[in-house]
Amino acid sequence: MKYVDLNCDMGESFGAYTLGNDAEMLKYVSSANIACGFHAGDPGTMRQTVKLALEYGTAIGAHPGLPDLAGFGRRKMSISPQEAYEMTVYQIGSLWAFVRSEGGVMRHVKPHGELYNMAAADSGLAEAIAEAVYKVEPELVLYGLSGSELIRAGEKAGLRTASEVFADRTYQQDGSLTPRRIPGSVLTDDQEAARQVIRMVSEGKVRSVQNIDISIQADTVCIHGDGAHAVPFAAAVSGSLKQAGIVVQAVGLTR
Amino acid sequence: MKYVDLNCDMGESFGAYTLGNDAEMLKYVSSANIACGFHAGDPGTMRQTVKLALEYGTAIGAHPGLPDLAGFGRRKMSISPQEAYEMTVYQIGSLWAFVRSEGGVMRHVKPHGELYNMAAADSGLAEAIAEAVYKVEPELVLYGLSGSELIRAGEKAGLRTASEVFADRTYQQDGSLTPRRIPGSVLTDDQEAARQVIRMVSEGKVRSVQNIDISIQADTVCIHGDGAHAVPFAAAVSGSLKQAGIVVQAVGLTR
Amino acid sequence: MKYVDLNCDMGESFGAYTLGNDAEMLKYVSSANIACGFHAGDPGTMRQTVKLALEYGTAIGAHPGLPDLAGFGRRKMSISPQEAYEMTVYQIGSLWAFVRSEGGVMRHVKPHGELYNMAAADSGLAEAIAEAVYKVEPELVLYGLSGSELIRAGEKAGLRTASEVFADRTYQQDGSLTPRRIPGSVLTDDQEAARQVIRMVSEGKVRSVQNIDISIQADTVCIHGDGAHAVPFAAAVSGSLKQAGIVVQAVGLTR
Amino acid sequence: MKYVDLNCDMGESFGAYTLGNDAEMLKYVSSANIACGFHAGDPGTMRQTVKLALEYGTAIGAHPGLPDLAGFGRRKMSISPQEAYEMTVYQIGSLWAFVRSEGGVMRHVKPHGELYNMAAADSGLAEAIAEAVYKVEPELVLYGLSGSELIRAGEKAGLRTASEVFADRTYQQDGSLTPRRIPGSVLTDDQEAARQVIRMVSEGKVRSVQNIDISIQADTVCIHGDGAHAVPFAAAVSGSLKQAGIVVQAVGLTR
Repeated sequence: MKYVDLNCDMGESFGAYTLGNDAEMLKYVSSANIACGFHAGDPGTMRQTVKLALEYGTAIGAHPGLPDLAGFGRRKMSISPQEAYEMTVYQIGSLWAFVRSEGGVMRHVKPHGELYNMAAADSGLAEAIAEAVYKVEPELVLYGLSGSELIRAGEKAGLRTASEVFADRTYQQDGSLTPRRIPGSVLTDDQEAARQVIRMVSEGKVRSVQNIDISIQADTVCIHGDGAHAVPFAAAVSGSLKQAGIVVQAVGLTR
Repeated sequence: MKYVDLNCDMGESFGAYTLGNDAEMLKYVSSANIACGFHAGDPGTMRQTVKLALEYGTAIGAHPGLPDLAGFGRRKMSISPQEAYEMTVYQIGSLWAFVRSEGGVMRHVKPHGELYNMAAADSGLAEAIAEAVYKVEPELVLYGLSGSELIRAGEKAGLRTASEVFADRTYQQDGSLTPRRIPGSVLTDDQEAARQVIRMVSEGKVRSVQNIDISIQADTVCIHGDGAHAVPFAAAVSGSLKQAGIVVQAVGLTR
Repeated sequence: MKYVDLNCDMGESFGAYTLGNDAEMLKYVSSANIACGFHAGDPGTMRQTVKLALEYGTAIGAHPGLPDLAGFGRRKMSISPQEAYEMTVYQIGSLWAFVRSEGGVMRHVKPHGELYNMAAADSGLAEAIAEAVYKVEPELVLYGLSGSELIRAGEKAGLRTASEVFADRTYQQDGSLTPRRIPGSVLTDDQEAARQVIRMVSEGKVRSVQNIDISIQADTVCIHGDGAHAVPFAAAVSGSLKQAGIVVQAVGLTR
Repeated sequence: MKYVDLNCDMGESFGAYTLGNDAEMLKYVSSANIACGFHAGDPGTMRQTVKLALEYGTAIGAHPGLPDLAGFGRRKMSISPQEAYEMTVYQIGSLWAFVRSEGGVMRHVKPHGELYNMAAADSGLAEAIAEAVYKVEPELVLYGLSGSELIRAGEKAGLRTASEVFADRTYQQDGSLTPRRIPGSVLTDDQEAARQVIRMVSEGKVRSVQNIDISIQADTVCIHGDGAHAVPFAAAVSGSLKQAGIVVQAVGLTR
């Protein structure tokens, strides 16, 4: 039996501002990465999103980000490993309290936005984040870009990791994502995206833009939750996986 | 054997800004209320303060406040009970993660500033805060003004509570504190303050400004940590208690 | 010739979050109250909204609010008159710089949300806000609830004022708005709302819920910009006014 | 007659947190760079600092920084030129309103911390900041590192500029500052620092650490306002300049 996790960023509303289609996306994904108030989210949104995820039986993870609400955590900031450690501990704890107070269990941690990108490439930040997760709770699964420094740091720290792939992004021969500014970086056809995921999960391979197959570890697939097309896309990928006999299931569960 | 807890607000520095004499105060108090980033504190300060408190063997508690860094959590804000619940859960969790990652155990929760004042008088807010504490961890001790709605709400929720008194403030006949704007609201003599505490602990009584004794429950004494006189005051009160045979010990421990 | 101003709150987006229908509303209103970053808005949104308002020839005003992005400036905060003064000066200045750098002129100031409500009832806050406006630029028009302390304070300070009325809210016999929690507080019929405005402008009267006419000064009408019905409502009120021969024009202009 | 400006960062307190020795430093410097609330400062601090500077007759400038209070504006953030433009306009405006409401005139703008550093090296950011200053008020003087992109951008935009040098830092042969992590980067002897300034002002030269004289434009000298030694250092530099017959005077004034 083949398994894969579909994960989606959630709980990104803030105060009077709403973002995303959380209730719809929860029908299709197996893991919810919930914002913790630094790049998005607030205590009320966190609580509501945790409750919703528990209703759907979706695995809950913390989604810590850079302290930059105005930039949605997408602006690179030169933080030290120590600062990365501290902001990760803080944010995991804040979500943990909502999960616990609603009777659930937190399963994973996935850094958000530029913190995710920096941790993919910078071993010092990656190790600081992995240590933060491990020190708070060694049973948590650390999500990171497949093949990244963050995955290596998680394994080194003794954490279970989930290597993340992207359904709708194309890959370079060296395993990196084609940068968004380059034409052909995004797959616009849902079926093609679904086929790419299925092959990554069942064969551990993806065809690069250089038309050469490369190996890739695919434990979890990032599904974007914002935009008008998010829900139909999630439905298409989820449906195709099921048809291909692949079980959509959170990483931190029974496998 | 008589016991009393001395508690002090700590971890109130923020970024480039430092406040308080935490390392000095930890020599005299038995409980540290650590700010959680809403009215003061930041992840780095929280971690450092938790480590310091653990070194001194001081009991650690969360000190959640209103989301008002510019006003230091001292400006009344009309929040709903639901908002009070959510901001309390969030802040307890954020500190919990630092305590856990440093190998300690969180003992108590004491609301800060105007959140403390509002919870003393407003049963709706008080019950929301007590519920938040209980839902996150029913073993936590809830600190509140002696005789307040918060203490009643904590007991009703099934929490252990700590009734707080003030060493250097005078009391009205109805058990309330003399407002700061009224002359004679503050005891300026350290020995007089120490005697007031000793009597509250050993006899359960305090002489009101109307010169009538009133009953008061004194489980814990608030010791201010800022200002030039904070450290000698803490030393004086702590020393007098020991001389009077009263053991200074955190509420959540063996008693 | 009768004149009235239609004003609308704008520029309330923040970072990744969008709110309102500014470009649509600008077709119907004569004055734009632009958020200044405390309760909503950010530098990029402010600049974009100023440019848009200048394109439409709409009069631009600062819309200072309480420093509470999470609460959208709608939670009462106990600020001192001095704090009200300072936050008003700061926010007027921030918007002024965008208006000036885009080649426009700022016309008015309207406090937002709970700052507006508090300034309507509290003469100390009202006078502090009026003084702030006057000290920065005495030519600015101060917008406030018709019959409020803020209007009185503005006049006392030597400012030109604009008495604001609400198209879709009903009035009590004492001139106050029917609180939103009471049934019948909101007019749901666009035509009825338009007729209420026309009568307020042309006769200076409004029929209270007690069925008695009261006098009311109506220089400017608040038109809400959010919600699905905002644009058709603005169109209906604007159209009805024109049909009634009332000119929609900003207060600070030629009248 | 030789002139030089001594400038100091001020108004860096925030809420309950105080920083710096503004009142003391104002005795020695001719220009005050006042924080605008992004990296430090708040409306109350801004007003107070403006009043104080006006009392001392010190020239007032805006000191815009990155939106990072927790990092004091010292953490590099990858902002776009457009974002740099917008945050500069916003912050200039906020301070302008306090200067105007207190009856003064704003003279200059000096970016703070990492915004200053990035604008020294990145022509895109430098031009955006220069454009922001020019669009708000073309009479403002733009302060930047001597020989930097920011000075070039200011001149290109048509602004008057002030080339800044450091009294207590050593210089490399290429005109750059010796990085702080390298031994010998800081001059610890007040008299040596004063002599370096005097030579930069009177001869336009500084001896580099490679022991070769280089040319340097010195319109204004950065004097740090924090730290225990700040006030005596300012006094020493100011005194030595006067003895050498160099007049300490703000750039934007009569020269």
